[in-house]
Amino acid sequence: MVQGRFLSFEGIDGSGKSTQARLLAASLRDMGQSVALTREPGGSPGAEEIRRLVLEGDPARWSAETEILLFTAARRDHMEKTIRPALDRGDVVITDRFADSTRMYQGISRGDLAATVDQLHALMIGLEPDLTLLIDIDPALGLSRAVARSGPEQRFEDMGLDLQRAMRSGFLALAKAHPARFRVIDGARPPEAVAADVLACARAHLGL
Amino acid sequence: MVQGRFLSFEGIDGSGKSTQARLLAASLRDMGQSVALTREPGGSPGAEEIRRLVLEGDPARWSAETEILLFTAARRDHMEKTIRPALDRGDVVITDRFADSTRMYQGISRGDLAATVDQLHALMIGLEPDLTLLIDIDPALGLSRAVARSGPEQRFEDMGLDLQRAMRSGFLALAKAHPARFRVIDGARPPEAVAADVLACARAHLGL
Repeated sequence: MVQGRFLSFEGIDGSGKSTQARLLAASLRDMGQSVALTREPGGSPGAEEIRRLVLEGDPARWSAETEILLFTAARRDHMEKTIRPALDRGDVVITDRFADSTRMYQGISRGDLAATVDQLHALMIGLEPDLTLLIDIDPALGLSRAVARSGPEQRFEDMGLDLQRAMRSGFLALAKAHPARFRVIDGARPPEAVAADVLACARAHLGL
Repeated sequence: MVQGRFLSFEGIDGSGKSTQARLLAASLRDMGQSVALTREPGGSPGAEEIRRLVLEGDPARWSAETEILLFTAARRDHMEKTIRPALDRGDVVITDRFADSTRMYQGISRGDLAATVDQLHALMIGLEPDLTLLIDIDPALGLSRAVARSGPEQRFEDMGLDLQRAMRSGFLALAKAHPARFRVIDGARPPEAVAADVLACARAHLGL
């Protein structure tokens, strides 16, 4: 397996990370790189089945602990069926969200589970991205973008702006704790400007 | 939570453990006990959804690791929604299979995962039965019973008699390693004779 080619995007809702993941994939392909673009939750047929199980119907029917186990099962499948085979082929793998999102979503809503999430990840996944691009944005701006894009987003409204602020702080703290892996990118600017920074970080990391 | 009232039945396919679980529940109810009879995989609405996800469609689409995570998610839901509330009410809880079945099925098919199964259980479940009734039977007899009951059972044929023998040895070794929790019951006799032994063990354990 070629080392160093596993990249993740993280950030709160409305940060623009999905757009940036697509733009980076396109830029790297233009440079002749073979790129696998994927996302979580999901990213493989089995993981998409688990995603539907968790997110369809009443999500409140699952406790935080059961949800962590289901997302970890989905991540395991995603890793086995999509990420590792692509890395073994020598592809650059770009995923829109990975384990850091589980760390944040559970860590914010159920702080006592943060250590459990880490232990479960160490036991059943192990893999971490080589480079994580954190698209950082003021939650108020993220919310206005999300509303403009798709009407009031249920999930965003459910979580509330205070919780998004806590998530942003959580992501920034995680980046500070893992400076070799994280790059924090200012996501408040136009997408092209953000994309230029993202591409510069990725090129420097990949030696392109 | 009242201690000591969580009972599990374990055994290979065709051992008669499901019949014995039902008979014990009926006998304890006749004695005026409040009993919750449940089973795995499943035992709560969410766990039944996960059971269907794992067992319907092509089961080979899941790796052993993903399957363990999905079964542990189902067990977590079963514990939260069915087992703990029943124990909190003071019921005797009788489950047809619990974590020992995961230990066996994974331990036999993927011996290297035995430690992982135990660590995952300690991290996300913790709960063990207070008394485990292992219905022990020669796999050849179990197979003939299973065939008589429902025609050739796909799962049994898939696993083969040698694997069932390995499972039986595995269960007996587990019972030997945990003598305070396990009672090994000879399941080769008529159901009424087995049920009498089972009831005697349960009464002694529950002080009834």
